[in-house]
Amino acid sequence: MASRSTQILEAAARVIARRGVRGLRVEELAAEAGVSTALIYYHFKDRTGVLRQTLEFISGRAERYTADRDPDAPPLAPREELEESLLLELQDTAEVRENSSAWGELRASAVFDEVLREDLARSTLVWVQEVAALLGQVRPTAPAPSLAAAAERLTALLEGLSMRWLSGGVEITHARELMRGAIDAELAGLATPRKN
Amino acid sequence: MASRSTQILEAAARVIARRGVRGLRVEELAAEAGVSTALIYYHFKDRTGVLRQTLEFISGRAERYTADRDPDAPPLAPREELEESLLLELQDTAEVRENSSAWGELRASAVFDEVLREDLARSTLVWVQEVAALLGQVRPTAPAPSLAAAAERLTALLEGLSMRWLSGGVEITHARELMRGAIDAELAGLATPRKN
Repeated sequence: MASRSTQILEAAARVIARRGVRGLRVEELAAEAGVSTALIYYHFKDRTGVLRQTLEFISGRAERYTADRDPDAPPLAPREELEESLLLELQDTAEVRENSSAWGELRASAVFDEVLREDLARSTLVWVQEVAALLGQVRPTAPAPSLAAAAERLTALLEGLSMRWLSGGVEITHARELMRGAIDAELAGLATPRKN
Repeated sequence: MASRSTQILEAAARVIARRGVRGLRVEELAAEAGVSTALIYYHFKDRTGVLRQTLEFISGRAERYTADRDPDAPPLAPREELEESLLLELQDTAEVRENSSAWGELRASAVFDEVLREDLARSTLVWVQEVAALLGQVRPTAPAPSLAAAAERLTALLEGLSMRWLSGGVEITHARELMRGAIDAELAGLATPRKN
């Protein structure tokens, strides 16, 4: 079961990254995945089901390529782990480009279409909590609301930079530099309680 | 001339904010603007011409609602001016919602379509330079590259937060708080040269 539905989700991510959410039609998805439309309806009920599962699939994939490490590699220091988790979203590889384009598209489509909003909010929350936990490992005495706010800013900035990069507005190396600067600024803010 | 073409651009911004860039067809735009398709072709040559001019129109409108002040009001301190210029992009008004939705759509469409990339990069650069100049008024001794990097981050974060707000992922008051926190963090970083 997993293999057939994964194949469909991989195709859906490709189609969304290439033509946008509005370009995703079940017939074309079937052709792209090399399956029948009936199989798509069987696994996902309807187009909305495909979109929701694709969102989850994309989040899972991002989590994998930002967290997966060689099990024999020495463990990372908390700060390195934080940087890696954010900077690996800004890699010029086919997989990251596709994943980030599809994510940006799903986010943009939620402005017009309410159907994905709840799933998107949930995925974003999980991501924010992960980044907040990594920040907390670097700054164990920082209060939880400050960690959460810093994580919300870093992830929203990453989305903004990612869209600029994918739309040709900024070079990937520069986007990574900017992201590193933001991590520094947030960690500095978490080390010394801000006055106002 | 201005009035007819402005009327068309206002209608184009409305259509893009409501249905996306891919939902903009010249026939529908004509109906929305209450003009003939011939007049649209006369003023803008083709659909690409409409999109490019709409981008400029949207940037101009954002500049207006983030900078226009009562001429009799006392002048703002540099820091207030900076905060106002950024936070006025996060207002829950019909105009800002429409403008930001359309901007986000134009940005997202540039991931798939190269035609708008150059105009988008130019508009973004103008915006970044304006924010860098405002940051420089608050931190006159900060080096220019640091001001530019801070401005790039603040504007990219604003785009990211704006999309989260418009897609229902964050409340407007919370988005504004996060933005204020980022301004504080960047100004703190510009006051004390960062160590690493």
